[in-house]
Amino acid sequence: MPALTFNLDTTEACELVDITDAVSGMLPDMPSAGAVLVSSVHTTAAIMVNEGHDPDVQADLLRALAPLAARDDYEHAEGNSDAHLKVALLGASQLIPISGGRLQLGKWQRIFFCEFDGPRTSRMIVVTPLAGA
Amino acid sequence: MPALTFNLDTTEACELVDITDAVSGMLPDMPSAGAVLVSSVHTTAAIMVNEGHDPDVQADLLRALAPLAARDDYEHAEGNSDAHLKVALLGASQLIPISGGRLQLGKWQRIFFCEFDGPRTSRMIVVTPLAGA
Amino acid sequence: MPALTFNLDTTEACELVDITDAVSGMLPDMPSAGAVLVSSVHTTAAIMVNEGHDPDVQADLLRALAPLAARDDYEHAEGNSDAHLKVALLGASQLIPISGGRLQLGKWQRIFFCEFDGPRTSRMIVVTPLAGA
Repeated sequence: MPALTFNLDTTEACELVDITDAVSGMLPDMPSAGAVLVSSVHTTAAIMVNEGHDPDVQADLLRALAPLAARDDYEHAEGNSDAHLKVALLGASQLIPISGGRLQLGKWQRIFFCEFDGPRTSRMIVVTPLAGA
Repeated sequence: MPALTFNLDTTEACELVDITDAVSGMLPDMPSAGAVLVSSVHTTAAIMVNEGHDPDVQADLLRALAPLAARDDYEHAEGNSDAHLKVALLGASQLIPISGGRLQLGKWQRIFFCEFDGPRTSRMIVVTPLAGA
Repeated sequence: MPALTFNLDTTEACELVDITDAVSGMLPDMPSAGAVLVSSVHTTAAIMVNEGHDPDVQADLLRALAPLAARDDYEHAEGNSDAHLKVALLGASQLIPISGGRLQLGKWQRIFFCEFDGPRTSRMIVVTPLAGA
């Protein structure tokens, strides 16, 4: 079947957008056992699985990532090398197990689209079901 | 088939537990070609593939990760935001290729459950076989 | 089918090698929908998906990673613990969606073999096709 995709707009320079429900909503088109690959097609936005209950955690994560990527000697003319580094560290995709027709996430786990060079319109996420065995 | 899981207890605040043999032991229930997804269902514990021969490497990794996540301005009241950041950096899961009925790991590679907010009892790992093609 | 592999030599201590074309060249042996798992079998070399258009980005990434892993108190006698940490941060593998017989990468995304303890000969990459569903 063709790739599933969805788009979203971001409103901040750096922002974590909870996309768990968007992915879960595609489960009727997926196998009842296997996994779903959630991929960013962007090089300045990552996908992460992490705590989704307390918004303080998400703010803490963004604040802690910033100095890891802050440098004054980047050469890339677009000035967003810090965003590329954050994507390198967090990853362009995450793979979530499916069992019994449900995402096998822990109680506190959520899937986040991580904007690091926003705000942007029409960020695209590719959602790929993979067969269990 | 239903998801495979196993549990383990950790004994330190931060600790790398080699789970390669636990995953390998499930190979009879898996396809002879494909991959196995090893997932933490926790937001303060990661999965990593790295060097498993010299315990000094594992101690070095834990010591080098600590300052990357150390901050005095975290707002999350539970006080474990550093653990959430480490999980963001290392990842909640790892996908290991299977060929000829064996994990396709390099000579020095092992799979680690990475505890960052321990000690804890009954940490759970989900093991999901995926079909080759 | 047996695992697909290929080898490459690296020429620098730290170096990003674009392996997208090597992976794409294997697509005729893969399903038209699913994903391809690209794995390093080494513990001092990672796989990353990131910007491949401007070489300045790649230089920036290597330069920004260096201080994150730089320490003077590593105990591992081989002296390459910084490389192990970089692999922990970037990951030993990446999973790329396939749809319509093509890698579903964004316009600027490329797949990189990341050498962190080179130069080395015959670094090996394992390429595993996974079935869509």
